[in-house]
Amino acid sequence: MDHFWAVIPAGGAGTRLWPLSRRASPKFLHDLTGSGRSLLQDTVTRLAPLAGERVVVVTGVRHAEAVRGQLPDLPTDQLLVEPSPRDSMPAIGLAAAVLEARDPDAVIGSFAADHVIGDAEAFHDCVRDAVAAAQSGALVTLGITPTYPATGFGYIKVGQPWPGSRRARRAERFVEKPDRDAAESYLASGDYRWNAGMFVVRATTLLDLLATWHPGLAESLRQLAAEPALIEQTWPSLTRIAIDHAVAEPAADAGRVAVVPADFPWDDVGDFASLMSLLEVAPDGLRVLGSREDVVSRDSTGLVAAHSGRTVVTLGLDDVVVVDTPDAVLVTTRERVQDVKGIVQLLQESGREDLT
Amino acid sequence: MDHFWAVIPAGGAGTRLWPLSRRASPKFLHDLTGSGRSLLQDTVTRLAPLAGERVVVVTGVRHAEAVRGQLPDLPTDQLLVEPSPRDSMPAIGLAAAVLEARDPDAVIGSFAADHVIGDAEAFHDCVRDAVAAAQSGALVTLGITPTYPATGFGYIKVGQPWPGSRRARRAERFVEKPDRDAAESYLASGDYRWNAGMFVVRATTLLDLLATWHPGLAESLRQLAAEPALIEQTWPSLTRIAIDHAVAEPAADAGRVAVVPADFPWDDVGDFASLMSLLEVAPDGLRVLGSREDVVSRDSTGLVAAHSGRTVVTLGLDDVVVVDTPDAVLVTTRERVQDVKGIVQLLQESGREDLT
Repeated sequence: MDHFWAVIPAGGAGTRLWPLSRRASPKFLHDLTGSGRSLLQDTVTRLAPLAGERVVVVTGVRHAEAVRGQLPDLPTDQLLVEPSPRDSMPAIGLAAAVLEARDPDAVIGSFAADHVIGDAEAFHDCVRDAVAAAQSGALVTLGITPTYPATGFGYIKVGQPWPGSRRARRAERFVEKPDRDAAESYLASGDYRWNAGMFVVRATTLLDLLATWHPGLAESLRQLAAEPALIEQTWPSLTRIAIDHAVAEPAADAGRVAVVPADFPWDDVGDFASLMSLLEVAPDGLRVLGSREDVVSRDSTGLVAAHSGRTVVTLGLDDVVVVDTPDAVLVTTRERVQDVKGIVQLLQESGREDLT
Repeated sequence: MDHFWAVIPAGGAGTRLWPLSRRASPKFLHDLTGSGRSLLQDTVTRLAPLAGERVVVVTGVRHAEAVRGQLPDLPTDQLLVEPSPRDSMPAIGLAAAVLEARDPDAVIGSFAADHVIGDAEAFHDCVRDAVAAAQSGALVTLGITPTYPATGFGYIKVGQPWPGSRRARRAERFVEKPDRDAAESYLASGDYRWNAGMFVVRATTLLDLLATWHPGLAESLRQLAAEPALIEQTWPSLTRIAIDHAVAEPAADAGRVAVVPADFPWDDVGDFASLMSLLEVAPDGLRVLGSREDVVSRDSTGLVAAHSGRTVVTLGLDDVVVVDTPDAVLVTTRERVQDVKGIVQLLQESGREDLT
């Protein structure tokens, strides 16, 4: 695994986790599992047994300082700072170009900074298999075994075994987030896996594939790796596109994508319901994030996030979600956690961007 | 009305209004109606057309400073400070004794500092009738027309017209808080009224009646009026008893109590449900106390009290009660507001008296 580099895109607002997650302090910077470390720190720790110090973090200029603060041991040249958000392809592509220049045999594994994985050893096994398949030229993705008919994730249709691999299979195609009926049929068929956005690929393979469909973007990224000083000038002109659309989908159609089935528990901590599933239920029926000693509850189930130092009392509410922060408190129910996004929008539209 | 004195007992913790109401800052000190003034200030203002500056406030030593701050025009000798709580008879009795010494013809009207009355003119009319009946030697109470089968108030059974009065009637007896069935039968009969603890009586009559059943207490109070310096020494030895038990109930049995039927809207603001009924419903379905601009709600009904300067967001909750203060936030439902008392007890038992 000497050529394996972990690439960690640290972006995304986590709007549905407001008011915990803010534009200025997105979810990857927070301890959302009670581990005592942020999701970003947990991600780096999880990858250390595979990548050692071969870790590159890509983040926005707005969060670079916070990332440096949380990862004081990360070498300066392994933190890539995007001047503005251009979606995942430019972010991961820049890391690929920088690593290709540093190590022509580099294999990169891209893993979001704000996901939670329950079984690190199983994850490591999958990544090792993915790296082996990637070394022979595949774009490899990890396909999470679906546990329910999710409509919030994209899916990967799994095909025949991948030649020469222990358990990788061909990824026949990527499927957009389905409706409920489609999700149920995917789950029932056993042929589909969740697309968790985890890609393992030789840096050179990724850029060459990108060059097939977006030659200008691939060229710009390789140029930036050679002349980093150009970034301020070049970055705003790059195509804003996700790696799935730019490379993974067309590459799957071209038979170039392998999928390693992944059975480890995985969660993208997309909303408070997802966050709840990661927390232990206390004997009183409540799940608590933050200061347990600040929470008093009676006849209540749900989630209380106590992050203001104040005492939070819940009385007689089922599946309640209370998120207490120094400048805002959210009170909702598990059923409505998807709509937190709309609240953030409402705040922005009504001139309260300071709270978002 | 020259001999009429308003006596305002300013006590009671308002435990069911926690965390708005605290031992150190009970509900009479708060603006709970959005009037911009505290319940105490509203009470004094309501009585001014009848009593002018003839107002005596009786409060605990703990709240004397806050009362002085809210009523800067109250003469020093019209604020009576109890060294410790001894329930309502010693408090009102002390005021009666002090006023009897000052004006042998004084008629006192005792009205709690933390009740809300919707129609001041109707209230004034009732009090005038009560004063007239009191001048002929009756202990007069105002009997509120019940609007629902309340189990949280005592009742007064109304009898024959009181001789010589425009509308006072004889109070046949006082009834303790009834169960639901009894409350319904009281309401249906039309013969019962709520006991709101409003008494109008000559100071001398009250003390003489008290002397009938509790001669030692009556004597101590008259002695304190003559020698106020004795209060620290005498007060702790006084019987702890409510005016209802000490005087009103036995006096009713003796045919000495008149009741003036009172049709004005009245509320003792006993809990958050009661408080809600006093607040206007905003177009979004929510009632707000405090800073309206700090509240953002969607698909929510109930009450938000915003008292911390933070933004409070409710999403998708019916009949929710959110009370936000600088050191504690309560989240419950209208159905459970009675149980807030138990939360305060829980906090006290678990060593968090600082919050109560």
